[in-house]
Amino acid sequence: MKAAILAVGSELLGTDRLDTNSLRLTRLLERYGAQLRQKCVVGDSIEDISEELHSLAAKHDLVLVTGGLGPTADDITREATSLALGRGLRLDPEVLADIERRFREHGREMPAVNRKQAEVIEGAELIPNRRGTAPGMKIEGMGSTLFLFPGVPSELEGMIESDLEPWLAERSAGEGRETVTLKVACLPESVVEERIAPAYGEFGREDITILASPGEVRLRATAQGPEPERRRRLAAMASRLRELAGDAVFCGSEEETLEGVVGELLRKAGATLTVAESCTGGLLAERITRVPGSSDYFLGGAVTYTNDLKSQVLGVPEEMLREHGAVSEPVARAMADGVRRVWRSDYGIGITGVAGPGGGSEAKPVGTVHIAVAGPGSVEHRRVRFPGDRERVRWQSAQLALDLLRRRLLAP
Amino acid sequence: MKAAILAVGSELLGTDRLDTNSLRLTRLLERYGAQLRQKCVVGDSIEDISEELHSLAAKHDLVLVTGGLGPTADDITREATSLALGRGLRLDPEVLADIERRFREHGREMPAVNRKQAEVIEGAELIPNRRGTAPGMKIEGMGSTLFLFPGVPSELEGMIESDLEPWLAERSAGEGRETVTLKVACLPESVVEERIAPAYGEFGREDITILASPGEVRLRATAQGPEPERRRRLAAMASRLRELAGDAVFCGSEEETLEGVVGELLRKAGATLTVAESCTGGLLAERITRVPGSSDYFLGGAVTYTNDLKSQVLGVPEEMLREHGAVSEPVARAMADGVRRVWRSDYGIGITGVAGPGGGSEAKPVGTVHIAVAGPGSVEHRRVRFPGDRERVRWQSAQLALDLLRRRLLAP
Repeated sequence: MKAAILAVGSELLGTDRLDTNSLRLTRLLERYGAQLRQKCVVGDSIEDISEELHSLAAKHDLVLVTGGLGPTADDITREATSLALGRGLRLDPEVLADIERRFREHGREMPAVNRKQAEVIEGAELIPNRRGTAPGMKIEGMGSTLFLFPGVPSELEGMIESDLEPWLAERSAGEGRETVTLKVACLPESVVEERIAPAYGEFGREDITILASPGEVRLRATAQGPEPERRRRLAAMASRLRELAGDAVFCGSEEETLEGVVGELLRKAGATLTVAESCTGGLLAERITRVPGSSDYFLGGAVTYTNDLKSQVLGVPEEMLREHGAVSEPVARAMADGVRRVWRSDYGIGITGVAGPGGGSEAKPVGTVHIAVAGPGSVEHRRVRFPGDRERVRWQSAQLALDLLRRRLLAP
Repeated sequence: MKAAILAVGSELLGTDRLDTNSLRLTRLLERYGAQLRQKCVVGDSIEDISEELHSLAAKHDLVLVTGGLGPTADDITREATSLALGRGLRLDPEVLADIERRFREHGREMPAVNRKQAEVIEGAELIPNRRGTAPGMKIEGMGSTLFLFPGVPSELEGMIESDLEPWLAERSAGEGRETVTLKVACLPESVVEERIAPAYGEFGREDITILASPGEVRLRATAQGPEPERRRRLAAMASRLRELAGDAVFCGSEEETLEGVVGELLRKAGATLTVAESCTGGLLAERITRVPGSSDYFLGGAVTYTNDLKSQVLGVPEEMLREHGAVSEPVARAMADGVRRVWRSDYGIGITGVAGPGGGSEAKPVGTVHIAVAGPGSVEHRRVRFPGDRERVRWQSAQLALDLLRRRLLAP
């Protein structure tokens, strides 16, 4: 099956946005063995959209369109598709009632502009949108199958799962490509590559990919072919990579996160956590609480940006702050131990550092961070110097703090 | 001048790479008033590339092609362009000598595969590549001007500066395009659209774009033409949009953020801030401290996920928590007031709500959030119900909290 993706939106032709929805769609196409041959972006012009639809439909069995289904005047994918197909648009009273109901539920009247979201192309099959007002459509026409989806990623995601994936699965007849991702925390890409090098020889270099981002390296193993063999090969690759990369591997899927894995370990241990942050400014608490249900093990976090609050809230001695400075091993330890003790949890994390761009010195340059993990019996500490800008330093600090806690929970 | 960009490379059709070269090219096109109408990505297939070249050249005055000029078997942009144009390729001895010399300079013999990089399309003008072996080409044909560039960003950059920019400048005659962005907080897209609708009539619909994301709408005004008029028109559009959208506009550039604007207001007022978060879990503190220098006004934040910590740290009365529940107006007020009082700041923010997916009830469904801002003299409160998943509810909660503080600081 030859597939193409068309992203609609003048904003995607500007200098600060890229069409990232296509990556999500591509993953799905690969999984079911469909071959993505072309991706296009066009602006909010009826003519451009409909011409491109014609040209893509002529060459591909499947055309996935995202964007331009919103309520505003520049949302014209419906009109353009109707023009390309030479089929009319009709107002669907059920869809309209549904949109009006959504607004009422949020205590508002439906603005008049939203009315056009209830217009449906003749012969199209509606794809319900549970996360927004714009329904999608599936249309057979111009020798191809077209799917129209909204551009809002969360809405697109819901509709992919409910409608596109089953449709692709039905047509793939068991053939496909599958990928397994292993995530590695807090090791440089080159170290990971060295460790897993033997697997290149054993499975072929083409099917193993390394992707590095700050504080995290992803290992991807890909296998293709009919279902049972593909799965067997994938399992063999994943287990070999895990063996080679060692305990720095913290999960075995694209969806899992370090904060999720740490949360699961805390839940299993029946343990609770509090955190005390300075340079990360709340990022660690924010990541921990991204996980639904984190209130089962996370009690709270203190962002103590000033020395006064470090003393008042966490009991860090004022002399210690004067003598060693806020960015120091004793203060990180006192923060971790203090928040654990004062806020009464099983584990406590303390982070203090220089995130930059200002505040660096010769002794404590930008990127210097002290992290401590306090638990029953002992407090561990790590001093690091992270490369990169404020955002990267903060991210890597939170990442290392989570990884230290993960290792502690694995080997208490 | 209508322009299109074609990125060539099968790796750009995978799941983890996007064509980012196009952003660099787009900036340049905008600066010189060329209008980017379409972007495409195709894989390493002679047929796909040449068909797409045909179709783009037919509709555009300028087609910029990146990638596929390397030495390996899958680098076939030269061949595909030659096929599309119906013109031959000839080996250019000077180019060949140049490539051989580059290799010799690095102490190596030129591998045989690099020989094809010296092939030039009939009638093409060569674009020297000072940073790599593949020269680019400028070709007049199929009713358009084509530029072929390598995909390596540093090589592309050099050739853009040396050849594309002067070519565009010559044709723009002082003409150009510029954009101003206004950001609007916490209003639905349709409300913003209704407010600014008069500007469509006054300035033309095409030059005003609305971009919505959760809790934020961006208004973009674009003007083109020669410099002084363009600037005047842009200023007039921006000021009219500001007038129509009202005080919900919080900044006038793409770079500024709501947390940055609030920080600036606090700094100007010489005021300090503390925050107390429940459902946002640290996101508010994290956003505030993303801003370099935020330690000038931000003292700290308390993420009190449990009722115990709400009482212990912020002094929220236990009877209040029992009687009204943690997600309630009195508790939000007590959190804002408590963190301000106990942690001694001029302003305090309290957020408590149900971020979901669990924890909702009929009286307090998922998305219900109470936000309070405490300042000298009074505490303000807002109850809202946000749509969307956990992440969106949290983001919009932090956004509204920042916006409430912004409004309070503007009209104290």
